[in-house]
Amino acid sequence: MSKNAKIRDEARAITAKPPAVILCEPQLGENIGTAARAMANFGLVDLRIVNPRDGWPSEKARAAASRADHVIDKVQVFDSVEAAIADLQFVFATTARSREVPKPVRGPDEAAKKAVELGETGSATGYLFGRERWGLNNEEVALADEIVTLPVDPDFASLNIAQAVLVCSYEWRKTASSGALPFILDEEEHPPAKKEDVLRLFEHLEGALDKATFFRPPERRPHMVRTLRNIFQKAELTEQEVRALRGVVASLEKRETRARKEKAEKNSDS
Amino acid sequence: MSKNAKIRDEARAITAKPPAVILCEPQLGENIGTAARAMANFGLVDLRIVNPRDGWPSEKARAAASRADHVIDKVQVFDSVEAAIADLQFVFATTARSREVPKPVRGPDEAAKKAVELGETGSATGYLFGRERWGLNNEEVALADEIVTLPVDPDFASLNIAQAVLVCSYEWRKTASSGALPFILDEEEHPPAKKEDVLRLFEHLEGALDKATFFRPPERRPHMVRTLRNIFQKAELTEQEVRALRGVVASLEKRETRARKEKAEKNSDS
Repeated sequence: MSKNAKIRDEARAITAKPPAVILCEPQLGENIGTAARAMANFGLVDLRIVNPRDGWPSEKARAAASRADHVIDKVQVFDSVEAAIADLQFVFATTARSREVPKPVRGPDEAAKKAVELGETGSATGYLFGRERWGLNNEEVALADEIVTLPVDPDFASLNIAQAVLVCSYEWRKTASSGALPFILDEEEHPPAKKEDVLRLFEHLEGALDKATFFRPPERRPHMVRTLRNIFQKAELTEQEVRALRGVVASLEKRETRARKEKAEKNSDS
Repeated sequence: MSKNAKIRDEARAITAKPPAVILCEPQLGENIGTAARAMANFGLVDLRIVNPRDGWPSEKARAAASRADHVIDKVQVFDSVEAAIADLQFVFATTARSREVPKPVRGPDEAAKKAVELGETGSATGYLFGRERWGLNNEEVALADEIVTLPVDPDFASLNIAQAVLVCSYEWRKTASSGALPFILDEEEHPPAKKEDVLRLFEHLEGALDKATFFRPPERRPHMVRTLRNIFQKAELTEQEVRALRGVVASLEKRETRARKEKAEKNSDS
């Protein structure tokens, strides 16, 4: 898979057992599928459904899952929330509104921390999500250990369930992988320039500007030099970029670059 | 709005200017709508579209936005990415794969930190999202200041654009609001019990168990007492829960509660 050849090992180094996702009485197969895809994006695989309105299996769910077949194929269907969470050891109930239930309320990031800690010891955890229209009832929330809610805009708080699954899954993987991204700026391929080379670039540029009598009046030179050097310092130049800029300056001052000179010499030799 | 009466002020106290979201050549109106809804969930309002395949306005987008009409009504359409980002001061390009472009690569959390810092000073920032099928091309990525990618499972990395918009919007609001949740465990309504009341509960329970000769052999009493006390300590009981447990113990030891006794006395008076 050449496409994945550059993927960093850190992005795969996850040891915590991923949480289960339990959807309580979802109405639309599309939502089940989109939730499955969101889980797959972040390495979750255990999807459980309590009384799906349109039955199971669902072709709409499979289509919406967009090739997350490994999640769809393993879906378990239950006839009660109690049965769906029976083998789990710690359960979060997700809800978008305040409850009478006196239970700790966590953000998805805090919940992920707890889920990863437990998952690291092999404990089985799960996130319980409510119905599209009205979420979970208080008895269902009471079955959970803690409540998870999202830091939404209170005036537009209604989240699609697949979106809620996505944010919880994202936070879980971010925590479990210590935020390791699949790729980063490749410093081997783009090594940062050595200060020596950057200074030589500055001197080259400033020399060229001296010749072009750019610094006028001359007493402003130190200030302008600082301004210019600062611009290129901020750019955190790579070796390759320093070479490119040397070429730019040489070209603008219409001076022959070493490469051209060598080529010219080589041509005159032959 | 009684529904929102309990919303915490902290969840609304956001001073940073929210970033714009720029969708580059989206094909499906549904995706535009779902992206608009995700933005609205986290308080983003400035949606810009570059060459939407099916034109604009789009009824499909409005339906999928699920009442995020304030976002849909203000959508701006452009015929180039350059035009769409012209008034912005810092732009993130989102991409799911490594690029030749030597640009810093950030997670959505790091990007949010930068976007909020800039937004606090009133600077205009934006997140650029690519096409459903193949994202952004290298020229488009080069227009941005930094790259954002998500800590996905490298083996299932393909995110729906609305999902990518959601995660970036979520991280932005989380950072801008310092993670303030719309509601938390209401400690005014559920005040934690005073240690004095918890100790009285313990003594009540242990006294009842003494009478029932639960502690056998007696030398195991100290160990069992510690175990029981620890269970209830972990539960971080509220005042109300301590009262409920006192009632439970009284009921099990078949002793009259004070309330019943008073009622009985009152009845005998009349």
